[in-house]
Amino acid sequence: MDPIGATTWVVPGGRIPFPSHGEEPEFTSFDQVCVLNTGDHPAQVELTVYYTDQDPVGPYPFRVPERRIRHVRLNDLVDPEAIRLARPYGLLLTSSVPVVVQFQRQDTRLPGALALTDVIAHPVG
Amino acid sequence: MDPIGATTWVVPGGRIPFPSHGEEPEFTSFDQVCVLNTGDHPAQVELTVYYTDQDPVGPYPFRVPERRIRHVRLNDLVDPEAIRLARPYGLLLTSSVPVVVQFQRQDTRLPGALALTDVIAHPVG
Amino acid sequence: MDPIGATTWVVPGGRIPFPSHGEEPEFTSFDQVCVLNTGDHPAQVELTVYYTDQDPVGPYPFRVPERRIRHVRLNDLVDPEAIRLARPYGLLLTSSVPVVVQFQRQDTRLPGALALTDVIAHPVG
Amino acid sequence: MDPIGATTWVVPGGRIPFPSHGEEPEFTSFDQVCVLNTGDHPAQVELTVYYTDQDPVGPYPFRVPERRIRHVRLNDLVDPEAIRLARPYGLLLTSSVPVVVQFQRQDTRLPGALALTDVIAHPVG
Repeated sequence: MDPIGATTWVVPGGRIPFPSHGEEPEFTSFDQVCVLNTGDHPAQVELTVYYTDQDPVGPYPFRVPERRIRHVRLNDLVDPEAIRLARPYGLLLTSSVPVVVQFQRQDTRLPGALALTDVIAHPVG
Repeated sequence: MDPIGATTWVVPGGRIPFPSHGEEPEFTSFDQVCVLNTGDHPAQVELTVYYTDQDPVGPYPFRVPERRIRHVRLNDLVDPEAIRLARPYGLLLTSSVPVVVQFQRQDTRLPGALALTDVIAHPVG
Repeated sequence: MDPIGATTWVVPGGRIPFPSHGEEPEFTSFDQVCVLNTGDHPAQVELTVYYTDQDPVGPYPFRVPERRIRHVRLNDLVDPEAIRLARPYGLLLTSSVPVVVQFQRQDTRLPGALALTDVIAHPVG
Repeated sequence: MDPIGATTWVVPGGRIPFPSHGEEPEFTSFDQVCVLNTGDHPAQVELTVYYTDQDPVGPYPFRVPERRIRHVRLNDLVDPEAIRLARPYGLLLTSSVPVVVQFQRQDTRLPGALALTDVIAHPVG
């Protein structure tokens, strides 16, 4: 099947909530990118993280095999460096083949409450 | 009226929340696709479900009559196989005629809390 | 200023939550369309409501003056007929001039909980 | 790197929630625009605020340096005038260079509850 989507995606509104309440990892606060690769070739994906007050950090590389998804929690990225919790950031995602990208947040900062958000990232080219 | 929308739609960020709390089916945790067919001909819709670690599963066929909507809970799909709860997945939706597709989640994993998310799926062609 | 946006917008995933908990009207459960008309001429807007099991109902007309917004709760529409609470529906919005449309839900079905969702409607033409 | 995105963005559904519960500023209710400027030149951004019943107010200017993000709480804008809490409004954002814009709400009106929403703003030109 032909690959579907775009090779560049943007999310301006990142901020991993901190702290978390409830059982880990199910109720850990997180930001997450979800990537779907419908094509017949693996996608080499790279994230660049933009900040308010310093130069961008990256690339954070990962791979999405052909005809597969990957849901990647931003909390789990450590190389080249971890994204500090509760710090505003933005994301640029580039892929070697067209993919579709969604961005999700789970927020358990408040005990007994649960907030989720969901956007399709902004596609470019 | 002319049909409105696109014939291919993508949602990378699926995961049916589990467990649920509260009265069924009103407060059952779910993922849902909402399809609107404004045209004068029925839409033959097919879902394909993509996973992290196995080949895609599908098609899951359903029909949206002319000038009608359908809201389909992913929890309710059983043929060719049920989507396992709490398992990450992505969706490809194709339709015989243009439609518009929205994706929603209701999450009642945490007793006394309620979280909802909503995106318009990513349209292609 | 030139009008910005599109003249047709679609929302497949409507369902006014029921019941509500908390003080009215601040915490009443609702579905809402938000329309922004940046142009120099008033927008004549019409909603058509699509259902699962009957013909579409409408038009529900309203007006958004030049350089103004309007936030319209679907709960408040009564002519040609009220939208039944907790009933799935979809929306087609057409406007005499380009506008931009957002769709929001406030859900207070669960006492002590609050859920909100937000999408930009799907633009057409 | 080339700048990515659009120079005009629209959000019809603004309304800063009021009141707030919980520790400030972490749990203060807010509406927020998040802007990512991937390009090599600073972005001069201007917001115009549209209302139901009066002429638009603005511009509210701010700057997003090259290769930087800015997350701006609408609550914090005071010049030319503060946006009244709990008052419906819409936003037009224009930028001197292409940027990408997301709109977020945090709602703590209900003690012990937390609601978040998230949309990519509607891009134009």
